[in-house]
Amino acid sequence: MQNPPHIAIVGATGAVGIELLRVLERRNFPVGPLTLLASSRSAGKQLQFQGRSHEVKTLTPEAFAGVDIALFSAGGSISKEYAPHAVKAGAVVVDNSSAFRMDTDVPLVIPEINADAARHHRGIIANPNCTTAVSLMAVAPLHRVFGLRTLLASSYQAVSGSGAKGPAELEAQLRAWADGGSAPNELYPHPIAFNVIPRIDSADPSGYTREELKMVHESRKILSLPDLRASVTCVRVPVMRTHSVSITAQFERPVSLQAAREAWDKAAGLEVIDDLDADAYPTPLAAEGHDNCFVGRARLDQALDNALTFWVAGDQLLKGAALNTVQIAELFV
Amino acid sequence: MQNPPHIAIVGATGAVGIELLRVLERRNFPVGPLTLLASSRSAGKQLQFQGRSHEVKTLTPEAFAGVDIALFSAGGSISKEYAPHAVKAGAVVVDNSSAFRMDTDVPLVIPEINADAARHHRGIIANPNCTTAVSLMAVAPLHRVFGLRTLLASSYQAVSGSGAKGPAELEAQLRAWADGGSAPNELYPHPIAFNVIPRIDSADPSGYTREELKMVHESRKILSLPDLRASVTCVRVPVMRTHSVSITAQFERPVSLQAAREAWDKAAGLEVIDDLDADAYPTPLAAEGHDNCFVGRARLDQALDNALTFWVAGDQLLKGAALNTVQIAELFV
Repeated sequence: MQNPPHIAIVGATGAVGIELLRVLERRNFPVGPLTLLASSRSAGKQLQFQGRSHEVKTLTPEAFAGVDIALFSAGGSISKEYAPHAVKAGAVVVDNSSAFRMDTDVPLVIPEINADAARHHRGIIANPNCTTAVSLMAVAPLHRVFGLRTLLASSYQAVSGSGAKGPAELEAQLRAWADGGSAPNELYPHPIAFNVIPRIDSADPSGYTREELKMVHESRKILSLPDLRASVTCVRVPVMRTHSVSITAQFERPVSLQAAREAWDKAAGLEVIDDLDADAYPTPLAAEGHDNCFVGRARLDQALDNALTFWVAGDQLLKGAALNTVQIAELFV
Repeated sequence: MQNPPHIAIVGATGAVGIELLRVLERRNFPVGPLTLLASSRSAGKQLQFQGRSHEVKTLTPEAFAGVDIALFSAGGSISKEYAPHAVKAGAVVVDNSSAFRMDTDVPLVIPEINADAARHHRGIIANPNCTTAVSLMAVAPLHRVFGLRTLLASSYQAVSGSGAKGPAELEAQLRAWADGGSAPNELYPHPIAFNVIPRIDSADPSGYTREELKMVHESRKILSLPDLRASVTCVRVPVMRTHSVSITAQFERPVSLQAAREAWDKAAGLEVIDDLDADAYPTPLAAEGHDNCFVGRARLDQALDNALTFWVAGDQLLKGAALNTVQIAELFV
């Protein structure tokens, strides 16, 4: 690996790609040569990085020559096709898509939780689904203390999770409403303005969506809990870019709020905001743009024994995507 | 009781009061004399009912002379003060506030579920909290078949639940955004446009909010399940008037999707919309203005045994308030 390393970003012009550039800048990631890749449609565009213009090139199998670290965020099918070329060229791939997450020889990593797993890669390391990442930032510290057994979650997911077209569609519908008209829904199956949509990603025969099952399977893998029982409901809400999750977690051992609070206070990347009387709890709007995830509304669950119920919010484009991807890359420099 | 009965509406100019007039009209409720009551601030206003103008009078202890049925929807403290006067004047009170719901000698009624309980009233019958009403429309049919044991719910509650000021604040914030500015939050503790707020009603020492505990205690009372274990998270979302709820319900007996579907198909006031592949599931925008509640996204829960997870939506101002109030009154005419 060169020092500083040659970095490639695949999907550089997408919502997460743009955020990757900002996160690399902000964290002073050591970037040597920088190769920005996208479809031929976006080739030729200029993107700014550390005050300099960089031209976007067309993604081809040959584009990874000399690349040390390739950050992929262009969807599962692009990752499936091009990540092997990057690996063959000698790059370490950090992939933000779902393409490789459940492959047994691909580590699935949240650095604050299972950084060690990254060491056993064979060229590709996967970045978890955004809702999984945000949720586990609060769940994992409790798991270390109490031993996680069962996870129930209902999400309130921002439109940025659908890529740049999500915020655009919400904005178009709200502007049309303000002008006394209406705008069609093209990206989402129903209007998203003044609505919530309890379906993200496609249907699985179990009746869950694939988005919901991602959180189940990825949580098991990241926490090394193959027998974890989990049930998730994923819902799109008219929020721009931060995901929130209502979580009930049941544990092997008796829980206390004080021990939970201590575990969270010690956890890197997590902030507790929890004073209901003072209206202090995480909200997605306030969490926007923050690297940290936020937890609050903690209480002893009244339905299940040894269980806690709480509320998490985290910027979907940061900890849910670009930040975690860069944090994984940082493990290698 | 006169035939047709003399009806009074307390809080006639409020969001639910206006809706009560529309529901009485739409259901051809037999209305004799109509007395519209509100604070002195609203006295003198004219409201339309069946094509005629009715003047709003000031609410006083003497205002209930001759009234047969008094529908209260002006908040808990008004109900506490004036409902006894209405009862003393010989009226049956149907109260939409939380003032009397948990009183042992006040029936708490959802007519499709426990109409019989209404018979044992001593002058006052309580209408449940909106989220409770909408949720139980789907939970009660399952309880009858499988025997409910544990209830976990996360809500997505519309701003209409805060009265007319809720939609006004959301609208003001979105219009300001469309004009490139911002509008302050006055009613809610945080902005509601592009946000979700995981706090409704005040804090209880348990860490739950009173809104969350209402659903716990009211579900126990309506379903005659004093030992029901329930945990609820109530969240305000930028939706105008329909509440949605993500529910996991665990039962005494083994469950099947087919038996659940049959129970729902037979249930009055409930419609099943459940074909995930075809993007058919309840959304709050589509449920707006409908008397029926809607259920979908049904699946065998993967976290708990003998449990089902599903999604309910119902118009907060109708089944969650005005419709259920009128349905209770219909039991007496």
